Amino acid sequence: MVDLHSVLTIAGSDPSGGAGIQADLKTFTALGCYGTSVVTALTAQNTLGVQAVHSCGSDFVDKQLTSVLEDIPVHAIKTGMLYDGGTIAKVVQRITSHFEANGKSPLVVDPVIVSTSGYRLLDASATDAMRLDLMPLAAIVTPNIPEAEYLLSASGYAEIGSIPAMKLAAERLAAGGHTAILVKGGHLVIHSEQLDQLDVSDCVIEYADMCNPDYPKILRAANGPCNDIHSDLVVDVLFEPNPTKRVQPFTLFARHRITTKRTHGTGCTLSAAIACELAKGQSVLAATRLAITYTHMGIATALPVGRGHGPLNHLHSLITRVVPQVTAHSPFPFVASLIRENQETWDGYVKHPFVQQIGRGTLPKECFIHFIKQDYLYLKYYARAHGLLAAKASDILSIQSSATIMLQVARESKMLESFCVEWGLSSSEIATTPESTVTAAYGSFILDSGLKGDDVSLLVALAACLLGYGEVGLWLAYKSQHAESGTILEGNPYRKWVEDYSGQEYQAACCEGIYTLEARIAADPPSPSRFRELSKIWSRCVELEKGFWDMAISLS
Amino acid sequence: MVDLHSVLTIAGSDPSGGAGIQADLKTFTALGCYGTSVVTALTAQNTLGVQAVHSCGSDFVDKQLTSVLEDIPVHAIKTGMLYDGGTIAKVVQRITSHFEANGKSPLVVDPVIVSTSGYRLLDASATDAMRLDLMPLAAIVTPNIPEAEYLLSASGYAEIGSIPAMKLAAERLAAGGHTAILVKGGHLVIHSEQLDQLDVSDCVIEYADMCNPDYPKILRAANGPCNDIHSDLVVDVLFEPNPTKRVQPFTLFARHRITTKRTHGTGCTLSAAIACELAKGQSVLAATRLAITYTHMGIATALPVGRGHGPLNHLHSLITRVVPQVTAHSPFPFVASLIRENQETWDGYVKHPFVQQIGRGTLPKECFIHFIKQDYLYLKYYARAHGLLAAKASDILSIQSSATIMLQVARESKMLESFCVEWGLSSSEIATTPESTVTAAYGSFILDSGLKGDDVSLLVALAACLLGYGEVGLWLAYKSQHAESGTILEGNPYRKWVEDYSGQEYQAACCEGIYTLEARIAADPPSPSRFRELSKIWSRCVELEKGFWDMAISLS
Repeated sequence: MVDLHSVLTIAGSDPSGGAGIQADLKTFTALGCYGTSVVTALTAQNTLGVQAVHSCGSDFVDKQLTSVLEDIPVHAIKTGMLYDGGTIAKVVQRITSHFEANGKSPLVVDPVIVSTSGYRLLDASATDAMRLDLMPLAAIVTPNIPEAEYLLSASGYAEIGSIPAMKLAAERLAAGGHTAILVKGGHLVIHSEQLDQLDVSDCVIEYADMCNPDYPKILRAANGPCNDIHSDLVVDVLFEPNPTKRVQPFTLFARHRITTKRTHGTGCTLSAAIACELAKGQSVLAATRLAITYTHMGIATALPVGRGHGPLNHLHSLITRVVPQVTAHSPFPFVASLIRENQETWDGYVKHPFVQQIGRGTLPKECFIHFIKQDYLYLKYYARAHGLLAAKASDILSIQSSATIMLQVARESKMLESFCVEWGLSSSEIATTPESTVTAAYGSFILDSGLKGDDVSLLVALAACLLGYGEVGLWLAYKSQHAESGTILEGNPYRKWVEDYSGQEYQAACCEGIYTLEARIAADPPSPSRFRELSKIWSRCVELEKGFWDMAISLS
Repeated sequence: MVDLHSVLTIAGSDPSGGAGIQADLKTFTALGCYGTSVVTALTAQNTLGVQAVHSCGSDFVDKQLTSVLEDIPVHAIKTGMLYDGGTIAKVVQRITSHFEANGKSPLVVDPVIVSTSGYRLLDASATDAMRLDLMPLAAIVTPNIPEAEYLLSASGYAEIGSIPAMKLAAERLAAGGHTAILVKGGHLVIHSEQLDQLDVSDCVIEYADMCNPDYPKILRAANGPCNDIHSDLVVDVLFEPNPTKRVQPFTLFARHRITTKRTHGTGCTLSAAIACELAKGQSVLAATRLAITYTHMGIATALPVGRGHGPLNHLHSLITRVVPQVTAHSPFPFVASLIRENQETWDGYVKHPFVQQIGRGTLPKECFIHFIKQDYLYLKYYARAHGLLAAKASDILSIQSSATIMLQVARESKMLESFCVEWGLSSSEIATTPESTVTAAYGSFILDSGLKGDDVSLLVALAACLLGYGEVGLWLAYKSQHAESGTILEGNPYRKWVEDYSGQEYQAACCEGIYTLEARIAADPPSPSRFRELSKIWSRCVELEKGFWDMAISLS
């Protein structure tokens, strides 16, 4: 979310959170936009109905509008309940002068007149102002059927009881202007066969979900035998006076009708979602399509709240991010999370008695030799795992990086051989060392992680060794510099080992490992379950590293 | 988000969206809670300051409270700007009777007195009511330093300029009661060395980010040489009169101080986040810790909005869900998305001329024979890929499922052999058929998807074949039933082929494939980039399937 899209709603407040600016702000947030909101009137309401209304007065609406518009660049505006003619007049005046000063931005007008529960939300005399003054400023107006009937009643228009009537109403509400009209079909039950018989010369039907006659048969079959193509639908009718990329001015959005009482705030949510998509630069058609889907999913996934007409679920489009974003003071959130989530195991590994004895130079020689011999055997797994990593790569840079590491390991392996000779071991002794169970377990686990998972799983499995040895190197170097707990490098038989792992070359490899992991995670943020899986791989490898040093100390 | 956690805020409205109920609702939404909000007063404000305030009157606050509390089960409540003593009295009265009737739920009191920009937000005379009547009802109160000073001024308490002073203030504000006090340290610069010297007998210091002395050295090193452990910190002090699982009553939350003007609504956001975590059942300590992290990340990732003190980023904890949730009318959203996103390619595959000619029985015999021979060779890849899938499995059921499919393929392979004999081919002819390029390309691509990715990548690669043949089977069966475009099974030389793929056994395998994929995706919802990657694998396989039939027709 690098681009910030600001959206303003001008509407009433619903304390129970299902409609009004509350529904709007939830929608803005769920769709990744920055929400601002001017309150026209407070209500005391809940899922059972509206208990009271408190007008804030058109002057205070104007003051709020001024505060927002003078400071925040707003990329789209929506209006909801405007309460009275005075408020509409102020809103029209303020928006007009804002458009004049800053250029036009998309306006969505949800012509709220009566609440779902039947409460009158707009002054009767204000309907004309809505239709004649506000609507022409809008990119799109989104009446439901009763609102469309109401707005057209002055021109003697009758009941809207069919799709052709919805189309006609939409066209008449556009009144020859540039405003698109979406007549929402929630109040009208359409049977799918009515759509089959429709004249489609001037319209495109967009089916969502399984009501689509072209829905894959394989999915219909998988849903069981009770799957009837013919069923009750909701059809929303969009009229675009100047459609782009289409010759047909009408688009019909059809989907299965859901039998539910959880529809409180549907209109608010839909118009808010259209505003968000327009703010992001979508066309009226695309914005409407996305918003209808978002709203529908909100109804379909709603949980029970309250005893009456419950609210939608505004959160269905979101997943919780488990690995935080990068910040200046937490530049490596993924690796930091892996370590923190397994802190005790990690500390048991990097501050292992083996490590501390290395730092003091007191580790028995035979333990170190046992360790080195097994490390020599382990390195083959480590190199092979990088071969597997290269085989799993998507770009040549990753392949190059794996190859470089394999070459480093080959050199390190040679170094270990000569190191062993220095410690009095013959080459044949090294070559014939039997592999300990821990070495085999650890090496195989890394390869298995790579076989089972993708490159990230394998990178995580490899990181416990890479980063752990880097941490040990830095920790011992730090302790010797500060002469902590007897750590000393001068005259320490293991000095070279410490200097290798705290040295520039090894540390550069650590950095590259960290950067690679963080970049992959930032580009493809893991779901909570995926993070748990990666954390499990990490924790297992950290345990196996600790086991490796246990083995060295116990000579097992 | 199966459990619904409802949270209520009682606070002022900030039309510019950074503070007040707007910040609260954004926080509730971002943290997955259902938000309700009672407005105490409207403000006209923006990032530059507060331009005007309109009180709604304590009676209307009471009406809103009644509407919410009588209908919505609220799991936690927070209060923000309460404006005057009358409102505090009504809130205290209503919450007290609500607790009496329904049992106590956690209350978070953010004692808002003065805005960041210096605007007085609470009547002077109301401070006593806040301290004596409201605060004792709370689970936790969250003053910043000026507010703590103000609340304690009656008892002659002086300036709070150090951590010991913050601790003392917190303890005194708790006043021997059960309420936890969080004194927020945003107004006080603490140098990290001050913390090193602190007496920690009665407190635990929890470091976030790189200010932690125990932060992994490897990550510090990876952040470059400019990394100074010693720096300016923000320290929030929590006092718990009855700490759980700890003997120390004080917890200090320390983190790097961020130099920024984007702090508008920090206090609102923090108290709202605490309320969310308490609603979810977290302890006061855990809720405070999570909320501080959430708020800090909001500051650290804030984008520029407005010309003054800009708002936090409330969206940092969210990822957009690309694969919608399952609903009654869209039971297989992942597979449906794959097909829809690649509709044209999919249609080119399942409605291929080869398929249509099969349906009419007009496909030249040599094309079908060529197809069958290559299909025979392809089946080996398909079976091997299931071997690889079994090798990548995490549970025995998946392994069982792969093994079953491999056995089915072995049977199918035998059937194809006898089928070929029926069509006049000798066994040796089948055995010596050279593999066409398309067969090799397709088979290898599936295996490569399994080598590169995890089991889901491989499942997607395999699904194009599995589901496509299922769709073709159903489509042809449907067309022949409806005698569409010459499709007929009676006397059709390819009848058995159509009946096999539309038959129960094959369709059951399709169902299992669909269920498995949907279950994996629901448990581990893909990020946008991961979905794109899976969609690419799918689309490539669908293209290769189409290529397979092109090959059959062109005998290439």
